[in-house]
Amino acid sequence: MKLYTSEIKAMPWQEPAGKSTGAPIWRYTENPIIGRNPMNHVARIFNSAVIPYEDGFIGVFRGEQNNGIPYIYLGESKDGIKWEFEQEKIRFVDEEGNEFMPRYAYDPRLVKVEDTYYIIWCQDFYGAAIGMAKTQDFKTFVRLENPFLPFNRNAVLFPRKINGNFMMLSRPSDSGHTPFGDIFLSESPDLVYWGKHRHVMGKGSAWWESLKIGGGAAPIETDEGWLLFYHGVSGTCNGYVYSIGGAILDLDNPSIVKYRCENFLLTPEAWYEERGFVPNVCFPCATICDPNDGRIAIYYGAADSYVALAFTRAEEIMDYIKEHSVLSDIDEERGKR
Amino acid sequence: MKLYTSEIKAMPWQEPAGKSTGAPIWRYTENPIIGRNPMNHVARIFNSAVIPYEDGFIGVFRGEQNNGIPYIYLGESKDGIKWEFEQEKIRFVDEEGNEFMPRYAYDPRLVKVEDTYYIIWCQDFYGAAIGMAKTQDFKTFVRLENPFLPFNRNAVLFPRKINGNFMMLSRPSDSGHTPFGDIFLSESPDLVYWGKHRHVMGKGSAWWESLKIGGGAAPIETDEGWLLFYHGVSGTCNGYVYSIGGAILDLDNPSIVKYRCENFLLTPEAWYEERGFVPNVCFPCATICDPNDGRIAIYYGAADSYVALAFTRAEEIMDYIKEHSVLSDIDEERGKR
Repeated sequence: MKLYTSEIKAMPWQEPAGKSTGAPIWRYTENPIIGRNPMNHVARIFNSAVIPYEDGFIGVFRGEQNNGIPYIYLGESKDGIKWEFEQEKIRFVDEEGNEFMPRYAYDPRLVKVEDTYYIIWCQDFYGAAIGMAKTQDFKTFVRLENPFLPFNRNAVLFPRKINGNFMMLSRPSDSGHTPFGDIFLSESPDLVYWGKHRHVMGKGSAWWESLKIGGGAAPIETDEGWLLFYHGVSGTCNGYVYSIGGAILDLDNPSIVKYRCENFLLTPEAWYEERGFVPNVCFPCATICDPNDGRIAIYYGAADSYVALAFTRAEEIMDYIKEHSVLSDIDEERGKR
Repeated sequence: MKLYTSEIKAMPWQEPAGKSTGAPIWRYTENPIIGRNPMNHVARIFNSAVIPYEDGFIGVFRGEQNNGIPYIYLGESKDGIKWEFEQEKIRFVDEEGNEFMPRYAYDPRLVKVEDTYYIIWCQDFYGAAIGMAKTQDFKTFVRLENPFLPFNRNAVLFPRKINGNFMMLSRPSDSGHTPFGDIFLSESPDLVYWGKHRHVMGKGSAWWESLKIGGGAAPIETDEGWLLFYHGVSGTCNGYVYSIGGAILDLDNPSIVKYRCENFLLTPEAWYEERGFVPNVCFPCATICDPNDGRIAIYYGAADSYVALAFTRAEEIMDYIKEHSVLSDIDEERGKR
């Protein structure tokens, strides 16, 4: 199996130890890798994304300030595990270079397409919607047009153009905690105008994704399709439970789901997933992948309080997804109505 | 004052008679112009749009079939008041000419831009969203890409391009009856990709639009701005009340509201507005305007059961909107965040 991801210098990695719930995925034993009060004025860092950069890694982090307003902070790491943060939130500017800050910004994703890095997040646009910026040096961050009307969350850019267009997953929402949600795909020739919207996947039949789903980490390109780690949500009498799910999308038409694992890959069981500001959340936002041997590190937010790491291997997890794949008609269709 | 609308042969018109609630707008005394069971298999026609065509008028009508599923029907009229309907719903095709019907379609608007007529409606796109088609002869109706992700309703196209782009108002929604809703503006160079989304107006401070608002008829171009008839919604213990409101948008930057009338222009008071499948609804979808003398006929859905007509004069209604204009900061800003 071939993986089309960037070469990396140092892979954050640990071999499996202890029990498994079935899927070939295991937690880092030193989790969480980012604990409470990681910065002076920031109470919690979680739901954050990282990427290989220069000799190590760089990341954009959801920092929940003590006043409750989330912003995006830059962090750097040599090993992908120990992170150092800039004390000031990222200052976004508009295309003329004037400061243009969102009122709040959360759940960032970080994706490189060609020679540019893109940050995609959720922010206020007279309602929750997707914000977006680009950078080449992680010093100047230029905001792009908001790709979609409200209400939307969990936008994830693909790491390359397909048929000449940028491709983005997103999850249309409502103005609140949204007790529904499917993943859609949209295309753009220029990152200004978006269209050719297609439905990708709806909620699943299994309990852990029976309420809603949303895109997670940027899809990993393999010769068998796009490997997508996403989140699935279940409703209980005491709130939502967020688990990590896996699917494989068609390479050229990613609105077509080729395989979708009926089992969760990871569900809240560790203390840092079950306990925190929002209990019972495993929320994947990024992966680091070694294209030479298929080792994958999954970065996920835990309980809206921590960043945690889990590991898997591309071939094993894809085999597992395929073996336990259950597709609905809606998954298999091209999602045009 | 100048009006930039199409020349018409026969204006549907009646001079005012009887009482007024303040605004210079009056109901047609023979309302409703389309009654119950207008066709064999259609229980109600309402929320429908008309336009001058050849020697008379043509329109697209929301026909609620007896089975409860709404579709769009074509109608023609010599005088704009008596309408004859095609018995078969409009058959939409894709760009290759293959039949491509929405699962349902409702609240159509009809707008001519350059030499093409566009129908914009609400339909299922794995959730309520905007559908769109074009025609030049009202015989072949070719569907275009759905402009926006779900959930969205009340899309209204501007009758000309602005700064080279098509312009559309819409009202992002949720999956249900949506107890919120603002009007946004989006642009497209090609009707495939949409972007540069801007917020136009939010709900108002007055009771009649204190819950949500939505675009109504296609804006009327005047030399003082775009005259917009929209709907405003109030919540009561027994459901929503839909009234007609008026605003004037900036000609070149219609995300800027220049004037917004704090009073409703028309609110449910007549029996056909208060009584019906959904009581208390005045829902404007189209206007016919005589550019020579400023007479305007407003077509509105009444109680989700009828089509009704109201009349006004451009100069008088614009003076009334200006005299009673109350703007919030949100109205006046360009709507970019």
